[in-house]
Amino acid sequence: MEQKLNSFIEVSPQSDFTIHNLPYGIFSRTAEGERQVGVAIGDWVIDLAALEKHGLLKLSDQDTYFNQPTLNKFIESGKANWSKVRKTLQSLLSVENLTLQENEALRQEVLVKQDSVTLHLPVRVPGYTDFYSSKEHATNVGCMFRDPKNALLPNWTELPVGYNGRASSVVVSGTQVVRPSGQIKLPNEERPVFSATRKLDFELETAFIVGKPTQLGQPISIENAWDHIFGMVLLNDWSARDIQQWEYVPLGPFNSKSFASAISPWVVTLEALEPFKVEGPKQEPKPLAYLQESVANSYDINLSVEIQTPKSAKADVICKTNFKYMYWSMSQQLTHHTIAGCNVQVGDLMGSGTISGSTPDSYGSLLELTWNTTKPLTLANGETRGFLQDGDTLIMKGHCEKNGIRVGFGEVRNTVLPALDFDFAETSEPDYEAV
Amino acid sequence: MEQKLNSFIEVSPQSDFTIHNLPYGIFSRTAEGERQVGVAIGDWVIDLAALEKHGLLKLSDQDTYFNQPTLNKFIESGKANWSKVRKTLQSLLSVENLTLQENEALRQEVLVKQDSVTLHLPVRVPGYTDFYSSKEHATNVGCMFRDPKNALLPNWTELPVGYNGRASSVVVSGTQVVRPSGQIKLPNEERPVFSATRKLDFELETAFIVGKPTQLGQPISIENAWDHIFGMVLLNDWSARDIQQWEYVPLGPFNSKSFASAISPWVVTLEALEPFKVEGPKQEPKPLAYLQESVANSYDINLSVEIQTPKSAKADVICKTNFKYMYWSMSQQLTHHTIAGCNVQVGDLMGSGTISGSTPDSYGSLLELTWNTTKPLTLANGETRGFLQDGDTLIMKGHCEKNGIRVGFGEVRNTVLPALDFDFAETSEPDYEAV
Repeated sequence: MEQKLNSFIEVSPQSDFTIHNLPYGIFSRTAEGERQVGVAIGDWVIDLAALEKHGLLKLSDQDTYFNQPTLNKFIESGKANWSKVRKTLQSLLSVENLTLQENEALRQEVLVKQDSVTLHLPVRVPGYTDFYSSKEHATNVGCMFRDPKNALLPNWTELPVGYNGRASSVVVSGTQVVRPSGQIKLPNEERPVFSATRKLDFELETAFIVGKPTQLGQPISIENAWDHIFGMVLLNDWSARDIQQWEYVPLGPFNSKSFASAISPWVVTLEALEPFKVEGPKQEPKPLAYLQESVANSYDINLSVEIQTPKSAKADVICKTNFKYMYWSMSQQLTHHTIAGCNVQVGDLMGSGTISGSTPDSYGSLLELTWNTTKPLTLANGETRGFLQDGDTLIMKGHCEKNGIRVGFGEVRNTVLPALDFDFAETSEPDYEAV
Repeated sequence: MEQKLNSFIEVSPQSDFTIHNLPYGIFSRTAEGERQVGVAIGDWVIDLAALEKHGLLKLSDQDTYFNQPTLNKFIESGKANWSKVRKTLQSLLSVENLTLQENEALRQEVLVKQDSVTLHLPVRVPGYTDFYSSKEHATNVGCMFRDPKNALLPNWTELPVGYNGRASSVVVSGTQVVRPSGQIKLPNEERPVFSATRKLDFELETAFIVGKPTQLGQPISIENAWDHIFGMVLLNDWSARDIQQWEYVPLGPFNSKSFASAISPWVVTLEALEPFKVEGPKQEPKPLAYLQESVANSYDINLSVEIQTPKSAKADVICKTNFKYMYWSMSQQLTHHTIAGCNVQVGDLMGSGTISGSTPDSYGSLLELTWNTTKPLTLANGETRGFLQDGDTLIMKGHCEKNGIRVGFGEVRNTVLPALDFDFAETSEPDYEAV
């Protein structure tokens, strides 16, 4: 059992950002100001570039790792440094350490209120891969998009199915999402029409960030996979279901996903998550040898989704689920990704796939929660939702808690903006039932 | 009709790299030496960094565009500069211009023999997308992988089907390709086996390189699409057909494609290709408004594939086809890619999809040429091939020719190395017929 640490910085018991967490992000003091590496604690950001400048966080004599616009350079510096910085910060922030605590000028330079800064995309993402590793989600989608009798395809229980996403449209929490337009196929029409999506959806996911690169042709063994993972974030894999259904056969989702994939700004390290490790679901059949792992390989992470409409006074919780339901582990995903020789790069983002539990209130998308609009959600103020409407704000949260120690992810939050006005568009009014 | 230009540098009539071409690449004088921008002419590379240093190619007073490890910075500088450099080089290389011609010291510094340099990946590729725009190829694959009666899926004639590929494994011609391993499903087995691929294949493609970025949420209109394209390369989209067939439903190809996608080292600009523009095939039904284009939007590019086995004295030509057979144009591909709001970045690589013609000798993959090994190829020395064997070298070439003016792509060439030896592997001997 992990020993509980105390910081001289007051941290509310409900804060995601305890001294046991110390997630990394990129912030600037003004919206357009210089971007630097920060760590969240309570309501504060610790400016690591300032600590580095004062010699309190030195990884190298020549180089700066924290006066950087992304985390990539620090991550590339290696796992030993990730641990070293964590230990140094836990020491500097501890009640027993007076270095920062009793130096007011230094504290003022190093500690910045979170609500006064702008948070940016924490990593430069060279590659974005999205897996599909929740059995419940894959089964639900298979029922609706294909055949309820054979909802899960034969390959699903043999390998962590995944596909390449679009890295350029990975955005940070807070980015507004323009409702995408494209081709959709209405059931009674011979040909597709051009329209704004009528089925704008979220997908509740987590994602891990690759921390150690590989060379082309060199697979990662399952034993070594964890050493290649830096940390995790929340991911909203924004989706347009009607565009998806028309375009996705045979080569997979494309425009229906590439308009925005939003992540939380704070990267929670595997070290911070270690106390919350649990066994994943039993895998039956037993995977092929390269995917077999003998250690606990999942995490107990509580996840929730909230929706705030322009008319609702407060957000409604519409989904509660847990990362531990995922069938395929992150180590299995990464190992499978590289088994044929594909190389990975520092900053690569690997999404879990939508995280659905077994009960209808634990489904990680509106497609599943409303069963493709056949069971619309009723919110506390009486409004109903099949899919998302313009002005809706979608919020995902996640945290671990055990023995009084809390480690959380904060949130990923985006608001939906109306579609662009295309002058050639053959648009018609949304008609959820007809689609 | 374009006026024929003459260079003081002797260029063989069969050279792809005439003064009308001037493709851009990245070279170094030694394998590990500094990388710089070069342009190919005849058997030579023109060192643009040297020209820039001597003030003969100045785009800016402060900055270097050519002493760079990739073309990205030059490409980002904009279309006006692409034209300016082309004109400057055509002038410097012309028989009428004595600047370079009569200055031997300068010539020795600026002109390097192609066979003495190492060529590198010409661009940093932030995103790689692969389309599927040959009707003949899509029909052939649909016949073999799905149902001959409904080979072409309903969305195929409505939109340029494409998917996100893996950018990290885009490599330059010359890179050796390790035969990938992974899960394959044998017809008489209940479960997949782990094995080296038994169906290693090439895909003959071209690809364009994005030259002008967009912001998230801002589609490119078909009228503006051409302004966002810098140039073209040859692309071998290496594929493992047995891994592909098992993994690709429902999210598309993943490990079967991400072990290597090889491009030719010289980027041929759209300006150089302009004289070879032709109409593409008639599109029936007429595409939706956002994909309609009223100008000629294809190019007459002769393409061929050769295979050289360890036992063959010279390479066998196994496919001859032409880019002009492609159903969907590059402008349609790019417009469709961004219509839902996806942003593009300078250096993005967009593959055409396999380019097959209508006759069996014009098919752009072994899957089609041998009809999934049912009609093996017989080479000149009597060897046969279903798919590629270890040691085989695959070579793709492409060129345009009209009114005595030739503009070519050079080649993309890779040799197949044996699979890695996995100690857990449940391998068995390749058995092409059984798969």
